[in-house]
Amino acid sequence: MRMYELIEKKKQGLELTGDEIREMITRYTAGDIPDYQMSSLMMAVYFRGMSDRETFDLTDAMVHSGDTVDLSMFGDRSVDKHSTGGVGDKTTLIVAPIVAACGGIVAKMSGRGLGHTGGTVDKLESFPGFCTSLSPEQFTAQVQRCGLAVIGQRADLAPADKKLYALRDVTATVESIPLIASSIMSKKLAAGTRSIVLDVKCGSGAFMQTPAAAKKLAETMVKIGTAHGRRTAAVISNMDIPLGHAIGNALEVREAIEVLKNGGPDDLREICLTLASLMVELSCKLPAEKAKVRTKEALESGKAFAKFREWIGEQGGNAAYADDPSLFGKAKYVADVLAEQDGTILACDADQIGLAAMVLGAGRQTKDSVIDPNAGVLLLKKPADTVKKGDVIAQLHTERPETLAAAGAQILNALVFTQQSVEPQPLIYEIIG
Amino acid sequence: MRMYELIEKKKQGLELTGDEIREMITRYTAGDIPDYQMSSLMMAVYFRGMSDRETFDLTDAMVHSGDTVDLSMFGDRSVDKHSTGGVGDKTTLIVAPIVAACGGIVAKMSGRGLGHTGGTVDKLESFPGFCTSLSPEQFTAQVQRCGLAVIGQRADLAPADKKLYALRDVTATVESIPLIASSIMSKKLAAGTRSIVLDVKCGSGAFMQTPAAAKKLAETMVKIGTAHGRRTAAVISNMDIPLGHAIGNALEVREAIEVLKNGGPDDLREICLTLASLMVELSCKLPAEKAKVRTKEALESGKAFAKFREWIGEQGGNAAYADDPSLFGKAKYVADVLAEQDGTILACDADQIGLAAMVLGAGRQTKDSVIDPNAGVLLLKKPADTVKKGDVIAQLHTERPETLAAAGAQILNALVFTQQSVEPQPLIYEIIG
Repeated sequence: MRMYELIEKKKQGLELTGDEIREMITRYTAGDIPDYQMSSLMMAVYFRGMSDRETFDLTDAMVHSGDTVDLSMFGDRSVDKHSTGGVGDKTTLIVAPIVAACGGIVAKMSGRGLGHTGGTVDKLESFPGFCTSLSPEQFTAQVQRCGLAVIGQRADLAPADKKLYALRDVTATVESIPLIASSIMSKKLAAGTRSIVLDVKCGSGAFMQTPAAAKKLAETMVKIGTAHGRRTAAVISNMDIPLGHAIGNALEVREAIEVLKNGGPDDLREICLTLASLMVELSCKLPAEKAKVRTKEALESGKAFAKFREWIGEQGGNAAYADDPSLFGKAKYVADVLAEQDGTILACDADQIGLAAMVLGAGRQTKDSVIDPNAGVLLLKKPADTVKKGDVIAQLHTERPETLAAAGAQILNALVFTQQSVEPQPLIYEIIG
Repeated sequence: MRMYELIEKKKQGLELTGDEIREMITRYTAGDIPDYQMSSLMMAVYFRGMSDRETFDLTDAMVHSGDTVDLSMFGDRSVDKHSTGGVGDKTTLIVAPIVAACGGIVAKMSGRGLGHTGGTVDKLESFPGFCTSLSPEQFTAQVQRCGLAVIGQRADLAPADKKLYALRDVTATVESIPLIASSIMSKKLAAGTRSIVLDVKCGSGAFMQTPAAAKKLAETMVKIGTAHGRRTAAVISNMDIPLGHAIGNALEVREAIEVLKNGGPDDLREICLTLASLMVELSCKLPAEKAKVRTKEALESGKAFAKFREWIGEQGGNAAYADDPSLFGKAKYVADVLAEQDGTILACDADQIGLAAMVLGAGRQTKDSVIDPNAGVLLLKKPADTVKKGDVIAQLHTERPETLAAAGAQILNALVFTQQSVEPQPLIYEIIG
């Protein structure tokens, strides 16, 4: 196999064979294929796409580029969830304990965030003492005891994906559906759960901006999972509007606790129940209706919150913070953003609101940036809400008062007002698989 | 300027600004932009193309990445010629002395071949003593004395093109018309002549396989030259059939001498007169008809041959070889390829015939391969010729007898026979500019 021939083939729109893809990924991971050839091929893939068969083979090659997690001791029960990422997405904190409370086995790895806010791992670390780097043995032992563990992404899983993603990230070849799908799925397959539920976000605050692209990505990932013998389903959900009110690490953890205590914003509660019920359906092999009833019951009865407390404690965190979220730190500077006019909010640019949170200190711009756990935005008014001039639209939290003006302006800029009445947007567009 | 943004822009089909292109080429040449980003951009250019303006700016940036030759002492008379390359192309050896004999100033740089046979520089070195690496001062002094000098490509001209071409060559991004055109023209513009005549070969033995692609390339190059204030014209010529009979270094030199002595194959003579007359027209500012008459007269009168002898001598070569080409070496093994059937040749695959010459030792597979100057093919029968079984179709010349069988089979394979009569193919498709 000459890499040149593979680039040429793909450039001409021809299919690469499974052997070609496997050898290419093996040699690229080993450093035998230079980045400049791989980036050229990635750009050709951007323009020409990949067949389902090529996408399966690429995923498979990346799964086998490193270690894979053995969860066979949990039979068919193990289940994972992945979100393509959005503004205010704190669903894992809520969904994982609900599913575990229903008998699903949640053995999950999560990333740190590079964007508006931290990732799940950063959010969990808001609990003093919480440890996100367990050894493989500690990890499975905890899952066995508690039905639930969440740790940081292991570097030895799918190293080819890691290397390839880093290259795509600097060569403008990220946004290709077969490449995104194989990247996500290679990590999920290597992580070893028998079932996988994907939350594909769609809208201004998401990577997939159009419903068509989100649907295509969701379908591709479900096909990859199914082709690899995993029960796989995907939810396509609205990310034109941030999820819940809280954007920022500690703010989001508090909001997640509210939902687990049977309160919290409706949209966040709804998406969490939808995801949890799908996970329970797949992992416990229940009919959809039964899974829905069981997850709702787990949340309303307080079993999910009890599981959450148990989980935090198991991983070394102080569960007293779950009982009394006022123990979490508070930002030194809190400022209100006031409506400058009467009207109804027609739309918001979720990405801009996420950027405002980042400006306040909630996110990372580079791998090495330090997150301010208390910084962020509480977006109190959202599309379809009617406001009067002077009403509090959002609350800004930061340690850096000099960022308040810019962040406030960014929030106001992100909102479109109308004098007409506004229909609420749907939260869940479609369930696939 | 962030290189990432430029890749993204081009990927989306947007135009890069002149400043962006200039900064990119400057930084790439300096090593400040990594190959993996440039190859990704090159693949995006393959798919999205470049506007004329972008192509001009890219060419200009590459011209100014290094030194440029000052030929202003020759006023408007200096003229260069470039062929996109084909099988049996020995036109420079003939055209250059014709033009110089007519008063044009031929100050030319040529490459070594990487392909079926050597390049012009290799062919000139068949003359014992011929020196192809003159200093800039020696070069212009010789042009002043003799009206003609041909040396090897100077490495300090258009270094950006050199670096970029090497990258494109290994990332399957060579075949893009704006990239080919800017690569060729950056070298020609840096070489400093006021007029440029391009021979764009089209067909199975050429880089451009279709008339449409050849025409597009020719038009693009003429536009680039004109935009840079050079008188530029292009000939689109047939390369479905090798030019003349000889393919191989010394064999081609002998054939070139035959034409200069008023003999030689008709097709070779015709293309040389066409190119020479265009060069004379541009450099001497003559009407086309007058230029035609003058070039024909220079050839037929023996003035061109006399100029050829003078030129070889000026550059240190032994001109006696021009008088008596039997002085050139001869391959140890010469074998005939016989027709296996009666019939008329309908078509031939020029590339396959070139590859046969390469198998016999005439060409380079890598930069460091050594050329056998005496190896090659004399293709005695060409399309529209009628043969009888047993007629000699071609003569193979080599030092390696073990290659004869494969080369002979390749020649026969490259020919298509018919029992119908065959119309001769046109040699010149079009003149542009």
